[in-house]
Amino acid sequence: MSIKYAKRMEHIKGSAIRELLKLTEQPEIISFAGGLPAPELFPIEEMKQVCLKVLDTDGRAALQYSPTEGYLPLRKIISERMKSSKVEVPAEDILITSGSQQGLEFSGKVFLDEGDTVICESPTYLGALNAFMSYVPNFVEVEMDQDGMKMDELEKALKANPNAKFIYTIPDFQNPSGITMSLERRKRIVELAVKYNIPIVEDNPYGELRFEGERLPAIKHFDTTGIVAFLGTFSKTFAPGLRVGWVAASPEVVRKYVLVKQGADLQCNSMSQRETAAFVQMFDIDKHISKIIEVYRRRRDLMIGTMEKEFPKNVKFTYPNGGLFTWVELPEGIDAADVLKLALEEKVAFVPGGSFYPNDGNENHFRLNYSCMPEDKIVEGITRLGKVLKSL
Amino acid sequence: MSIKYAKRMEHIKGSAIRELLKLTEQPEIISFAGGLPAPELFPIEEMKQVCLKVLDTDGRAALQYSPTEGYLPLRKIISERMKSSKVEVPAEDILITSGSQQGLEFSGKVFLDEGDTVICESPTYLGALNAFMSYVPNFVEVEMDQDGMKMDELEKALKANPNAKFIYTIPDFQNPSGITMSLERRKRIVELAVKYNIPIVEDNPYGELRFEGERLPAIKHFDTTGIVAFLGTFSKTFAPGLRVGWVAASPEVVRKYVLVKQGADLQCNSMSQRETAAFVQMFDIDKHISKIIEVYRRRRDLMIGTMEKEFPKNVKFTYPNGGLFTWVELPEGIDAADVLKLALEEKVAFVPGGSFYPNDGNENHFRLNYSCMPEDKIVEGITRLGKVLKSL
Repeated sequence: MSIKYAKRMEHIKGSAIRELLKLTEQPEIISFAGGLPAPELFPIEEMKQVCLKVLDTDGRAALQYSPTEGYLPLRKIISERMKSSKVEVPAEDILITSGSQQGLEFSGKVFLDEGDTVICESPTYLGALNAFMSYVPNFVEVEMDQDGMKMDELEKALKANPNAKFIYTIPDFQNPSGITMSLERRKRIVELAVKYNIPIVEDNPYGELRFEGERLPAIKHFDTTGIVAFLGTFSKTFAPGLRVGWVAASPEVVRKYVLVKQGADLQCNSMSQRETAAFVQMFDIDKHISKIIEVYRRRRDLMIGTMEKEFPKNVKFTYPNGGLFTWVELPEGIDAADVLKLALEEKVAFVPGGSFYPNDGNENHFRLNYSCMPEDKIVEGITRLGKVLKSL
Repeated sequence: MSIKYAKRMEHIKGSAIRELLKLTEQPEIISFAGGLPAPELFPIEEMKQVCLKVLDTDGRAALQYSPTEGYLPLRKIISERMKSSKVEVPAEDILITSGSQQGLEFSGKVFLDEGDTVICESPTYLGALNAFMSYVPNFVEVEMDQDGMKMDELEKALKANPNAKFIYTIPDFQNPSGITMSLERRKRIVELAVKYNIPIVEDNPYGELRFEGERLPAIKHFDTTGIVAFLGTFSKTFAPGLRVGWVAASPEVVRKYVLVKQGADLQCNSMSQRETAAFVQMFDIDKHISKIIEVYRRRRDLMIGTMEKEFPKNVKFTYPNGGLFTWVELPEGIDAADVLKLALEEKVAFVPGGSFYPNDGNENHFRLNYSCMPEDKIVEGITRLGKVLKSL
């Protein structure tokens, strides 16, 4: 006899990216596959001071159970820092989560019954698809242009899907496309959410990593009725290994997330929460972020510049103003998964685009990450990839 | 208009314990309510060395994303340490989770469709009920005696509930009852699981905290077919604030948990995993556990001794050979929640027993924790509680 699992397990597949990460761990591979921050920028020496400080001043609490909602001084810091994207949320309406990935998982749990609809960008972050998938929803994809989700298409989707439970969007330097939603559309998406009474889950891991131009207000900024749940994280600005993210939402909605967190894992790591707060208090995190921006901007420039030189002219790609990714479109009929096989022979890796589309299709895309490879490897890797593409 | 949540949210209630924790945070309250380890035993000085060591030797990896399954050296340590409860599981079949609470949540996700049945002890850990509840199962409770779950009752429940998906049990110093399952029943429960093809979720947070007598083999020890998923944790032997627990199961079953972990939060804290491993490598964790045992044993003795002196004779309680809790039974018709109100007036807190029974009833019980209060407060608190009980 064999063990009977829940039906949802038929829908939960491994993340192509995380499986790939294993393959690409071989040091000779030039990998543009992951979404990893540059580890050479991690503030390791500062972290030593931070750890000693936390253990010296608050060691018992750092090692003990603590409230589900999270460490209050950290929630206050987040509340304060969110003002830079013009969002006013009191610390009380912020829940600390294990990265923003856990915020995605909880969004599924809070909102989705089987067969409900999630409206999302096309393409969208595949980790979000994985998280939502375990609640077995339908996905309705909304086309994007260079200003993000098309609002007339979104309204059509909202009209056609009365069982929609939320709109999922990554407005800044979207994963995987690198696209940023325009100011007008940020206003408009909230109007539509209110009109159709469908919450927005605004996922913003990259907003602080803008290379040029002015930071746009978050979608949450335009929210006057509590219809937007904002997911944030320190993974890209401090350290993903500490798994510190957050949900900021209305008191009613954040309370639902808190109840889910209680059952899911009681609370986040008491020590990491204090370390994150201490890092912000003891050091200048904005200066640290500037350093990250400088390095990533250079890598973006180098990657895009090399692509312009080395890629065939019928291969298109986006120009991201921040974040970690550019998105490549091959001529129709070419499957990026086949290209990956050829690229791996040249010791170069990326993520084929198919899995960023919940309803399949669009296999002629792939995602490139530029944050995690040193400059010489970016030039070398993209040049090799250009050769592969020209050979097709 | 109001926001539409998933139907499961109607079934997710706050944990009475965690709400109570807030009330009882006032320093003048003598609280036997939580399930907290004694914070004065946390190895804070050792942790400082551990943090520096991890950051010095492996800082980049400690702050970076890492594999979903967990840090391999830590999984090897766990595999090795599980031999003390006579379990042989290779490191590859161990997934690191955010405390064993996350293992409980994942058990729900892996196994439970709405309306499925969970068979559990009566009473049982209410955090597990909270975790499972979000998958909207039915609970069938199996009566216990001083040797744990009654096996004839369990077989009746298995026969009567063909939609049972797993048996949930805490075999050592059960939360809340303090009861330990006998050796014969550990063998028998596996036979029954195999006969009815229903997996066992063996939750063992307290097994290493035995005050007297010989450690019994885990239920998993008797598992030859891969029908037992074992949940463990460092929360009671090292530090709950670090949120490091694990699931050890067959390759097939652990793979399901890994897939769920990917969507839920990608991975556990990279740094805490390394800290836990470094603590075990640099210091003598068994000596540290002996110290904990010594302190808790004394507190148990003092609590039970004072109860024997101060509680009325018609109030019964269990004698735990380890772990954190004793379980009190009041005469029928007395509601422990009413007693709590009187006790709080005397500045003493505990957890009323009703919420440990998924199908209600049994309000004449309550749980007392002895691990977290110093000795003078145990005597003082139990004496005050005795007065309240005598006044009824």
